[in-house]
Amino acid sequence: MSSHIEEFYSCLPAPIDLEETKKLIKDFCCRNTETDCKIVLVTSGGTTVPLEHNTVRFVDNFSAGTRGSASAEYFLENGYSVIFLFRLKSLEPYVRHFTGQAFLDMLETNKSGKEKRIVGELAFPVKQESAAALLPVLLRYQSVKETGRLLCIPFTSLADYLWLLRAVSESLADLGPRALLYLAAAVSDFYIPANEMPTHKMQSEAGPPTISLQLVPKVLEPLVNNWLPHAFVVSFKLETDESLLISKARGALTKYKHKLVIANILQTRKNKVVLVTTDSHYEIVVTQEETNSAVEIEAKIVADLKQKHDHFIAVSCRR
Amino acid sequence: MSSHIEEFYSCLPAPIDLEETKKLIKDFCCRNTETDCKIVLVTSGGTTVPLEHNTVRFVDNFSAGTRGSASAEYFLENGYSVIFLFRLKSLEPYVRHFTGQAFLDMLETNKSGKEKRIVGELAFPVKQESAAALLPVLLRYQSVKETGRLLCIPFTSLADYLWLLRAVSESLADLGPRALLYLAAAVSDFYIPANEMPTHKMQSEAGPPTISLQLVPKVLEPLVNNWLPHAFVVSFKLETDESLLISKARGALTKYKHKLVIANILQTRKNKVVLVTTDSHYEIVVTQEETNSAVEIEAKIVADLKQKHDHFIAVSCRR
Repeated sequence: MSSHIEEFYSCLPAPIDLEETKKLIKDFCCRNTETDCKIVLVTSGGTTVPLEHNTVRFVDNFSAGTRGSASAEYFLENGYSVIFLFRLKSLEPYVRHFTGQAFLDMLETNKSGKEKRIVGELAFPVKQESAAALLPVLLRYQSVKETGRLLCIPFTSLADYLWLLRAVSESLADLGPRALLYLAAAVSDFYIPANEMPTHKMQSEAGPPTISLQLVPKVLEPLVNNWLPHAFVVSFKLETDESLLISKARGALTKYKHKLVIANILQTRKNKVVLVTTDSHYEIVVTQEETNSAVEIEAKIVADLKQKHDHFIAVSCRR
Repeated sequence: MSSHIEEFYSCLPAPIDLEETKKLIKDFCCRNTETDCKIVLVTSGGTTVPLEHNTVRFVDNFSAGTRGSASAEYFLENGYSVIFLFRLKSLEPYVRHFTGQAFLDMLETNKSGKEKRIVGELAFPVKQESAAALLPVLLRYQSVKETGRLLCIPFTSLADYLWLLRAVSESLADLGPRALLYLAAAVSDFYIPANEMPTHKMQSEAGPPTISLQLVPKVLEPLVNNWLPHAFVVSFKLETDESLLISKARGALTKYKHKLVIANILQTRKNKVVLVTTDSHYEIVVTQEETNSAVEIEAKIVADLKQKHDHFIAVSCRR
């Protein structure tokens, strides 16, 4: 790792349970490292940048975790084992289909007086009208759980995310080209160094504060070049200004030398993405008709990536 | 309303569905305005302050919505009707007990081959070991839903919150002293005016940005003095520095002239709060023993407030 990145990490507070999490990751990789097994790291959700040590306020990146949580499901369906590195409380695979009170609304209790208090199977049927939507998701969830092919690791802050990304990378290195990185998390470009942060909550009586942010070094650079030089790395680029999209995506590819950028515009990201390589770019879209029949764009993205990744593995192994 | 606040609101983008939400609130208040009915507005969760018009980044306030969502349940148990104004995706009453994958883990499908695909009651029992925890919560949830005593209204941004707070206040004015305001949301003190905000995502190539925030005018002032002069208003004060806590709480009471501040320290807020009035303050605590038997501090806070509020109503009506 370059000394610049090394220095940056040395000032970055590590999650308190980092060593236990590293063990979980290592065990997961060992269990899933059969000859033809592929593991994808899916990162998902936004990172927080605390403005105080005792954090009351923070800068956050907009992301519900829709892209990441949906993609994780499709990777599992396509035979991948999945490490899902996600922002705590953002959407998670399978359970994403039932948020808020939807879950309680699906259950009914037996209303006839006496039986109402009986705890047991008959007191808790899922309503008929909810069962049709719930059953296929539940079966997929249970099957994935049984086979141990999904490891969910939560993060909250940018610092957590960066430490965990490095920990996963270390464990995936042994897989060579069979590791796929699908970096869909919305990671902050900016942060406040620990030594420039106030200890306590900023007081409004002191007048409105000015927040001076610093640039986060791009860890994609050591990740591609040092941590996982043989992996298939896919990054995301979210913009709000369409005129910048392709040039910024290609700029990232030139700079970090990874395989692919999935570029998208905030307003249209659920219907359209652009897959950008060093020498080409093409769109993946879902039509209104497909959306109406519950086709998700992530199904198409993952199918496309699987093909690319399989080809990449074949070529890498021939060398 | 003072002209300063009026001017501030005139520049504040209103939620697009404000008129429909106002109607929901008005209908709820009408349905729940019997002679002895009390309505509490519980606000919960943090507000966001967007840094760009097409929002990729925002400043947020730390709050999972634990205090607000738990308190809403206890107010309902104490006979109140509840308007729950909460940050979208923060904790909600009842469903707060089952977050993440906990819900899917509670359900079992019939594993014997053929029956596995049968959609219906027998295919979906809640596991015996989960039923004991789920049943009482589910019954309370369903009872509250049937009686129509809970209205949940989500917000995300500071602007949403401020518009909705005003809308609820307008509808609660008719209740006089029977309205209780329990302002537990973590509301930003700072914001960026719409005309000083960039349209597009800030570009990291331009170097690290400096974010200049402005003070949000305190709406507690018009709320107490103009919007709801007869209501029982309780605000919260969260600090990280214990030495400031009581003086800041009392300062707020002197300034805004409401009834009570519930003061708490970030690190100990689940075990201890201080109830501060103009001439006294006392602690409410939960012991480790109580925590072990699932006693929540919000149960004690709400019981205390109910008593205070009943006394306040009796005194107000005698006048």
